[in-house]
Amino acid sequence: MKNSFGNHLNVSLFGESHGEEIGVVIDGLAPGIHLDMDFINAMMDKRKAKGRISTQRKEGDEIHIVSGYFNGYTTGTPLTILIHNTNTRSGDYEKTKNRLRPSHADYTAEAKYLGYQDYRGGGHFSGRLTAPIVAAGAIAMQVLNEKKGILIGSHIAECHGIKDTLFSSDESTLKSEIEKMNASDFAVLDKDIAEQMHRHIEEAANIGDSVGGILESVILHMPVGVGEPFFDSIESRLSHLLFSVPAVKGVEFGLGFDFANHYGSEVNDAIIYDQKEHRVKTATNHNGGINGGISNGMPIRIRTVIKPTPSIYKEQDTIDKETHEAVKLQIEGRHDPAIIHRARIVVDAVLALGILDLLMERDATLSMFNRT
Amino acid sequence: MKNSFGNHLNVSLFGESHGEEIGVVIDGLAPGIHLDMDFINAMMDKRKAKGRISTQRKEGDEIHIVSGYFNGYTTGTPLTILIHNTNTRSGDYEKTKNRLRPSHADYTAEAKYLGYQDYRGGGHFSGRLTAPIVAAGAIAMQVLNEKKGILIGSHIAECHGIKDTLFSSDESTLKSEIEKMNASDFAVLDKDIAEQMHRHIEEAANIGDSVGGILESVILHMPVGVGEPFFDSIESRLSHLLFSVPAVKGVEFGLGFDFANHYGSEVNDAIIYDQKEHRVKTATNHNGGINGGISNGMPIRIRTVIKPTPSIYKEQDTIDKETHEAVKLQIEGRHDPAIIHRARIVVDAVLALGILDLLMERDATLSMFNRT
Amino acid sequence: MKNSFGNHLNVSLFGESHGEEIGVVIDGLAPGIHLDMDFINAMMDKRKAKGRISTQRKEGDEIHIVSGYFNGYTTGTPLTILIHNTNTRSGDYEKTKNRLRPSHADYTAEAKYLGYQDYRGGGHFSGRLTAPIVAAGAIAMQVLNEKKGILIGSHIAECHGIKDTLFSSDESTLKSEIEKMNASDFAVLDKDIAEQMHRHIEEAANIGDSVGGILESVILHMPVGVGEPFFDSIESRLSHLLFSVPAVKGVEFGLGFDFANHYGSEVNDAIIYDQKEHRVKTATNHNGGINGGISNGMPIRIRTVIKPTPSIYKEQDTIDKETHEAVKLQIEGRHDPAIIHRARIVVDAVLALGILDLLMERDATLSMFNRT
Amino acid sequence: MKNSFGNHLNVSLFGESHGEEIGVVIDGLAPGIHLDMDFINAMMDKRKAKGRISTQRKEGDEIHIVSGYFNGYTTGTPLTILIHNTNTRSGDYEKTKNRLRPSHADYTAEAKYLGYQDYRGGGHFSGRLTAPIVAAGAIAMQVLNEKKGILIGSHIAECHGIKDTLFSSDESTLKSEIEKMNASDFAVLDKDIAEQMHRHIEEAANIGDSVGGILESVILHMPVGVGEPFFDSIESRLSHLLFSVPAVKGVEFGLGFDFANHYGSEVNDAIIYDQKEHRVKTATNHNGGINGGISNGMPIRIRTVIKPTPSIYKEQDTIDKETHEAVKLQIEGRHDPAIIHRARIVVDAVLALGILDLLMERDATLSMFNRT
Repeated sequence: MKNSFGNHLNVSLFGESHGEEIGVVIDGLAPGIHLDMDFINAMMDKRKAKGRISTQRKEGDEIHIVSGYFNGYTTGTPLTILIHNTNTRSGDYEKTKNRLRPSHADYTAEAKYLGYQDYRGGGHFSGRLTAPIVAAGAIAMQVLNEKKGILIGSHIAECHGIKDTLFSSDESTLKSEIEKMNASDFAVLDKDIAEQMHRHIEEAANIGDSVGGILESVILHMPVGVGEPFFDSIESRLSHLLFSVPAVKGVEFGLGFDFANHYGSEVNDAIIYDQKEHRVKTATNHNGGINGGISNGMPIRIRTVIKPTPSIYKEQDTIDKETHEAVKLQIEGRHDPAIIHRARIVVDAVLALGILDLLMERDATLSMFNRT
Repeated sequence: MKNSFGNHLNVSLFGESHGEEIGVVIDGLAPGIHLDMDFINAMMDKRKAKGRISTQRKEGDEIHIVSGYFNGYTTGTPLTILIHNTNTRSGDYEKTKNRLRPSHADYTAEAKYLGYQDYRGGGHFSGRLTAPIVAAGAIAMQVLNEKKGILIGSHIAECHGIKDTLFSSDESTLKSEIEKMNASDFAVLDKDIAEQMHRHIEEAANIGDSVGGILESVILHMPVGVGEPFFDSIESRLSHLLFSVPAVKGVEFGLGFDFANHYGSEVNDAIIYDQKEHRVKTATNHNGGINGGISNGMPIRIRTVIKPTPSIYKEQDTIDKETHEAVKLQIEGRHDPAIIHRARIVVDAVLALGILDLLMERDATLSMFNRT
Repeated sequence: MKNSFGNHLNVSLFGESHGEEIGVVIDGLAPGIHLDMDFINAMMDKRKAKGRISTQRKEGDEIHIVSGYFNGYTTGTPLTILIHNTNTRSGDYEKTKNRLRPSHADYTAEAKYLGYQDYRGGGHFSGRLTAPIVAAGAIAMQVLNEKKGILIGSHIAECHGIKDTLFSSDESTLKSEIEKMNASDFAVLDKDIAEQMHRHIEEAANIGDSVGGILESVILHMPVGVGEPFFDSIESRLSHLLFSVPAVKGVEFGLGFDFANHYGSEVNDAIIYDQKEHRVKTATNHNGGINGGISNGMPIRIRTVIKPTPSIYKEQDTIDKETHEAVKLQIEGRHDPAIIHRARIVVDAVLALGILDLLMERDATLSMFNRT
Repeated sequence: MKNSFGNHLNVSLFGESHGEEIGVVIDGLAPGIHLDMDFINAMMDKRKAKGRISTQRKEGDEIHIVSGYFNGYTTGTPLTILIHNTNTRSGDYEKTKNRLRPSHADYTAEAKYLGYQDYRGGGHFSGRLTAPIVAAGAIAMQVLNEKKGILIGSHIAECHGIKDTLFSSDESTLKSEIEKMNASDFAVLDKDIAEQMHRHIEEAANIGDSVGGILESVILHMPVGVGEPFFDSIESRLSHLLFSVPAVKGVEFGLGFDFANHYGSEVNDAIIYDQKEHRVKTATNHNGGINGGISNGMPIRIRTVIKPTPSIYKEQDTIDKETHEAVKLQIEGRHDPAIIHRARIVVDAVLALGILDLLMERDATLSMFNRT
């Protein structure tokens, strides 16, 4: 599917960093959704570069809906969102266009697109392309919340070794933590840790370097019985989307890699019945809300690693793509010393899109908005 | 796609643990492939339960090709492989069928299939289903090797804390390591570590418990320029398949989660030109052979965590699925104290299937321009 | 998707005429369907060759369900149907295997599969492959009828110039006509016409020739609002399936090609409101129940042309596939002087599969059988 | 796939008649295609309304490429084309918006989109949406011609009973006929017939009525061995696309429905070997270049019926969608007395898109064997 995904919700992404428009077409949305533009714009704003811990390229990122929306409601036909690129400084890339940037897609794009790709600002590989994804994800998040009471949220669990506290295992506490994170610009649960991380990113910026980190995400109030065994497990579908987010290099569910350090008897989740809520639960949630690829009703817990931004100001070794000779690269342009605080919103967006697509598979109410 | 996957190679999986047949339909294979049955059977054999570190359910796992194969060659039409279930002891499951097994799919399957699922031996969720996947994967591995010189291999990098040495970063050493692993029943690079792990699994079996671990996998001689930005990145496609393997709860590429502990300047892979091989390389391979979702020609490095087998003999707390009352569960039947040594083959198989599918796509997109 | 189709119901077909097994995997069926084996076998029986107007190759066509069915109900996991090939006489094809049969797939298969295809009895291109399609279609037809009261039926509207009366425009008369056709072996509305056609096919057989015809099909009680504008119109989805039936060379909806002979004012369907049934109808049904690609609640009317069986006993001109020299071909083996009376069942089957797939797109009750 | 199609070329269509933009995203195009804008604009121009035989709504239909095109070449990333709607007169639709237009999608859209659809000018169901399809098709046509020498063309074979001569069976004559048709505004082979048809459409306009017709299309120089048996036959794939063109109600290949009037011996295509061209041919082409769903190298012949435009000025019977009471409808707005001369270009466009998508697949399946 290349730049599209979804079995029920067909999302097609397009554009380049310095092209005229970037955007997304979302097909399969139910008719009759009144979009909450304040919510969508708030999510767009959180993805934006701000202050000294982000690139100095400031973009309006105004979303412009050109189809599928009529009299304030979705029509049920493809909804197209355009975002105009404004603050482009292509000149920054002319000088170094032949110098392959380490850990960027310059060389792989050259190999795949035979030199015809738009190299300016990373072209189609630019983080800019996550703006339309966030716009689409905001719509998905609104739908999931309004129709199913599903909440999705993430926080920066680690940033270059600095660790935040983890999301609570108590569902009502978790709910308020998610709401708090979704309202904040720099999503960290512990205020002091937040300041430490912020300061550390600034220091990385000062030395022309970059840092990464780990996001902890949670999906609360997930219905039971969603997903498929084998090739369409929830883990398969969500990891597919998470790994489409630039800089993501690892994804784990529940205990994840820590499962390797335990006996089965230590990490099996005992099954209990909650007499008050009249539902089956597990005493612990080491499996992160998923068994056999299918949701069990407990919160879905995901951890995603974001690598340090490859664009750094420090001088690097590379080659000239035409002469193949070794050259030094001094990256110019405007870059992020860290993107984890912005990637957080993109991760929430793809999770929302993935969950909505999964739910539509068996839930007619999601494709037919005013039937319940 | 539920129990199918692939854009070019359409693989459909079917069957239940105690059903009559399990199998797979592979559509899209080129015509004229002479299957190496010895190689396929050798891979099937490595997936099999053997000795005291595996379940005592011993299966013939004889593969039976009933379509798409004629006069010793693939025909190009759907190739169907059947595997007959022989050694079933359904009685083991009757007594406890109402007791939801912790960390198994019993409850989620009940919720999804409304009680109609075949519960015997885990039914469709059984590890048995990985047998046809391995058969399909063996064919993919043969094709990749014969037509592209691509090698895929894995070893047990960790088993309940016991760590093997890692795959070499030298390509020729790596090649022999892969061949060694692919020839061994218990894939560990260091002989002494192998014995330690083996002993530890036996000890876990003795106390009625189970252990998991981490697999390190590598794809050698991957062509440059394969994969797509965003939704069909190599990471997206491979993780989708890896997470379809039962017990996989985490996947990382290159440095993976360790990226969170480094500065960009420490983990960016400097680009060099190899004058002997006349190709672009990177001095290090922290990105695991993938940039921007596309292969860069370096070995693709993947780590996958396999959780401890949820089936343990120790008594566990659960509920009766009908009365909802708390009950003790004493699992009967025949189980694996560890599956990581068998899962290794399944991981190789899905990687081979994923890479073959990806390559068929790339050849498609390029082929309009170098054919007549 | 090659030998598979469906967005919600994934149907994968496999096998060759003289191979060991032919079959189909149906993924996406709801759990809890108690299959009506008498109904399925009755449909299988109607597809079978019988009497002098069909091939003398008589097949048991016993369907054998090997997965996805447990204790008399579908499990919701892939349902696999195998049909064993018994009455094969491969020898018939040895002598003439190098002589490309006119209007058969011999030459195109040779070009596509590079000579590796199983040529015996047409291999994968054989009408035999329609047996598993009918088995799958019978299940779809049962589900549509039980859950939605949808009826599907066809009759031979024309056979080599001999014309049957058309289906009634009155819905209750139409209902009984469909039931009558579905109960008959040789589906023709007018008894006398049936005899004429039957006699004419026998005469064609006597002179070693073959004839084709036109099927009129109808889908009754179709819900309103199913289908998509543009690329997934009902016409697009159904024609896609109809043209997958061997020998189909034309498909039309409503007036079809006759639209070319009328003014808009003559063929527009006036819209009326039925006070008794409290539903919108059209005074006429020239559009065959579909407007803008979407169902309008009127019966869907389809006409499909079946070309004369290319296998005839008369001597024909062709070439030797290796030497390319002109040769005479005297086809041996056992062939049908007409297949339209058997193709009728296959057409009903693919229509049922297509409609079920379309309805699942927005109807949860179809994927979750005991929720309504 | 709703408003998208393609296995290799992913085409996503969006927009409404009176919305801000209509457009298309084409993903999967090879990099390095220098677009022939004159050719694309010429095709756009032929789709345009002109003179008295078309609607008086005149649109600029200027195509605007906003992504996937850089320095005059395709980049290989999604190519997005926008077309701005200019000449909208939404007021025309206000008065009659509650009156369901017979044989239009008004009622079915209402049922599907629950009243949220943009009703102005037919909204998403408008023929306007064929403009981006033609733009995409023009690119496909250019690629097919430049890379494969494939030519696609259509002419009006019938218009309300008036018949043109048919395409020649001689390939070189056919080639010049296709070129002639592709260069003409009103594609009819016989000059006098062209005038008759033109006059007849004007007369239909004068009496406030409309007419339809039949298009004969041909695909010349089609490679041998393209397509799949069963569900992805060339007929299946092309009919799927043809039936997505508004007003198409029937599609036939080769002799099509006329097969019903012949003996097998009359319509089987004898196979011959052309010593000059060193290729296999058939003496006749009753099967329209396709056997068993796969191309045989002869010209692919298709006939498509276009129903009379449902928008007529004559008064019609319908109901009010809210009160359900019977009302008279006097359509206002600007309409086409015939669209067949414009639909011709849309048919060529979808055929080109379908063939390009099919060829990319075939190159994929073969490519494992003639690449290194």
